[in-house]
Amino acid sequence: MLSVEKAIAELLQNCRVLAEPVPTRLGQALGRVLAQDITAGIDVPPADNSAMDGYAFRHAEWPGLERILPLSQRIPAGLRPPALTPGTAARIFTGAEVPEGADTVVMQEHCRAVGEGVVIEKCPLEGANIRRLGQDIRCGQQVLARGRRLEPQTLGLVASLGIAEFDTFRPLRVAVISNGSELVEPGEAVKPGQIYNSNRYMLSGLVRRWGFELCDYGIAPDDPFAIRDLLARAAAETDVILSSGGVSVGEEDHIKDVVEDLGSIDLWKVAIKPGKPFAFGRVGKTPFLGLPGNPSSVLVTALIIARPYLMTCQGLGNAAVVPVRKRAMFSSRGGPRQVYLRAKSVADGVECHPRQSSGVLMSTVWGDGLVVQAPGQDIAEGDEVDFIPYALLA
Amino acid sequence: MLSVEKAIAELLQNCRVLAEPVPTRLGQALGRVLAQDITAGIDVPPADNSAMDGYAFRHAEWPGLERILPLSQRIPAGLRPPALTPGTAARIFTGAEVPEGADTVVMQEHCRAVGEGVVIEKCPLEGANIRRLGQDIRCGQQVLARGRRLEPQTLGLVASLGIAEFDTFRPLRVAVISNGSELVEPGEAVKPGQIYNSNRYMLSGLVRRWGFELCDYGIAPDDPFAIRDLLARAAAETDVILSSGGVSVGEEDHIKDVVEDLGSIDLWKVAIKPGKPFAFGRVGKTPFLGLPGNPSSVLVTALIIARPYLMTCQGLGNAAVVPVRKRAMFSSRGGPRQVYLRAKSVADGVECHPRQSSGVLMSTVWGDGLVVQAPGQDIAEGDEVDFIPYALLA
Repeated sequence: MLSVEKAIAELLQNCRVLAEPVPTRLGQALGRVLAQDITAGIDVPPADNSAMDGYAFRHAEWPGLERILPLSQRIPAGLRPPALTPGTAARIFTGAEVPEGADTVVMQEHCRAVGEGVVIEKCPLEGANIRRLGQDIRCGQQVLARGRRLEPQTLGLVASLGIAEFDTFRPLRVAVISNGSELVEPGEAVKPGQIYNSNRYMLSGLVRRWGFELCDYGIAPDDPFAIRDLLARAAAETDVILSSGGVSVGEEDHIKDVVEDLGSIDLWKVAIKPGKPFAFGRVGKTPFLGLPGNPSSVLVTALIIARPYLMTCQGLGNAAVVPVRKRAMFSSRGGPRQVYLRAKSVADGVECHPRQSSGVLMSTVWGDGLVVQAPGQDIAEGDEVDFIPYALLA
Repeated sequence: MLSVEKAIAELLQNCRVLAEPVPTRLGQALGRVLAQDITAGIDVPPADNSAMDGYAFRHAEWPGLERILPLSQRIPAGLRPPALTPGTAARIFTGAEVPEGADTVVMQEHCRAVGEGVVIEKCPLEGANIRRLGQDIRCGQQVLARGRRLEPQTLGLVASLGIAEFDTFRPLRVAVISNGSELVEPGEAVKPGQIYNSNRYMLSGLVRRWGFELCDYGIAPDDPFAIRDLLARAAAETDVILSSGGVSVGEEDHIKDVVEDLGSIDLWKVAIKPGKPFAFGRVGKTPFLGLPGNPSSVLVTALIIARPYLMTCQGLGNAAVVPVRKRAMFSSRGGPRQVYLRAKSVADGVECHPRQSSGVLMSTVWGDGLVVQAPGQDIAEGDEVDFIPYALLA
């Protein structure tokens, strides 16, 4: 059996970016992966500005606790003010540029307005309440690297530099195919011996959540010639084929013969539970990832093994996640495979669903993540364990 | 000052679901919130089926280690098999229905095929390798409750029950408005005293990431009459108005006067850092959330205060997140406000960005979440602290 780490490493070795850079506007870039570095073309902030609503003045000119400093100007945000007249203060607002000659801003709560002037009743330190030119970002500084996923705050940062367009990798086109002659679509009548196709909706959801372009091919027919046509079409139309079911050593699994015939396929036994059978191959030149058929196995192998591969094809620089440590509220004997226990985080630690059978999707919906149990690792109640929230794998 | 907990509680008390239920198909439901309970109409699995590729037989009829059990049928998945002929075995594949009369499945790796029969070389326990009717879900069982967010695995579960359509709340329409006469759109030329509008792109990204319908109104004009028109239009067209900037006590902030005039507004001083000024009001009947103007303050107040309010308006049953515990790799003195330190999780714990100024978006992009520092809580290196990954707030 192949360890999970080796399986992922082997996949990533056979992996390259499959999406081309495309010019992208800020408003369309959410969730995209940067295809270029982002370098600041300006200083942020572009000038010294006030961190408060208050008064700008020269610290050395503070007349003391009871004396009035006359007001010489009023500076709203958005205007470049003239230099401060010596011996005066300027009314200033948050974000407004500090005038030349002023070196300190006092917050208005520490002042008293008197006629055409102001009494500063609590004088701050020299330089207080001023955000300095370039204190956040210096012109010429690289702020984001190629391969970075664009989250809301990342878009905010790019916007703050005035950059409205940049290159991102176009979304990876991912084919989703469900295999199994027993599968029936939800909404249709189920006959004896048939089951509803759940993997299609789970995998389609993951593909969309991951930011890829979903190419949904539905249920593969139970006929080698029709499967051949379907796979050839998927290979021509997409970047990667993600398939569930049909890759065990059972005789009824036509798909692996067809993939072999159109390209190549390796059946792996990965030391993962739920999971284990995993196929990696190519249909023509298009990579083919064959997941197991049981829903929980599909979820775990998709999140743990397929995700880093697909993300790397998309151009993401680092698809690894840092698990969090949680206190186990359960005990579990280790086995030969790495187990991904469907679990739920609670205030005190993490609980484990009592039924971990690979057919049971209820366990994945009950909780919010996976406890990673290494091969041979016995978990006792109270142990610190590695927990990966599903949210980190989205 | 209002504590963060009290501010959220106060908001949620003034909150109701603002989106109507709409019939939704499985393929369109990703990220939606359920507007109905989901109850199973079938047993899952619908019949006893094989967990392995192997042979189904009656355990009492095992002829021993060396004797051949003749094969009487071959059961692919997807067919209802006839009852097992006594004294025989049936070839069976994963997911295929176990025939009446068989009570055990032996995996093929423990068998040897001989002519028209099979030798079972390692006999499993009676009942082995069979997934029982209804073991995952019983007909009539409630599996999901109204108010639940539909993630990929949740969609898989609904699909496995054969349910193709159900009611979800239509996405909340959220208006995003940026206030500040100093703001300029990225791509345009910036004049002295002006800064680029980053909050628009950050808030728009959050609104879309949260599954809402984005209604982007751009930068509010610096004129009370034009603001009045804009707010009245946003109130008529959307469910909630999310506004950044313009709610401090400075004189240049027209927006609060206009909101007051068109409805009502309360200015809160929330004990949150970055953050503090927060406005809650109504434009006509449409709720108005006024966030601060500094980008980091906008991010933190949006994630911590606005998110639970908006999610509750959307119909989500529980918008609370469980922070994870991490070991601090830094020290920080507590203050009067609850601080959300921009931080980065590493293998050993969590690091804190050295510059926590509210104007600095770099700190939010550098890391992957927020350390929560309660009022007065001094954090020493090595302390366990509460950390909220940004991913949990998406």
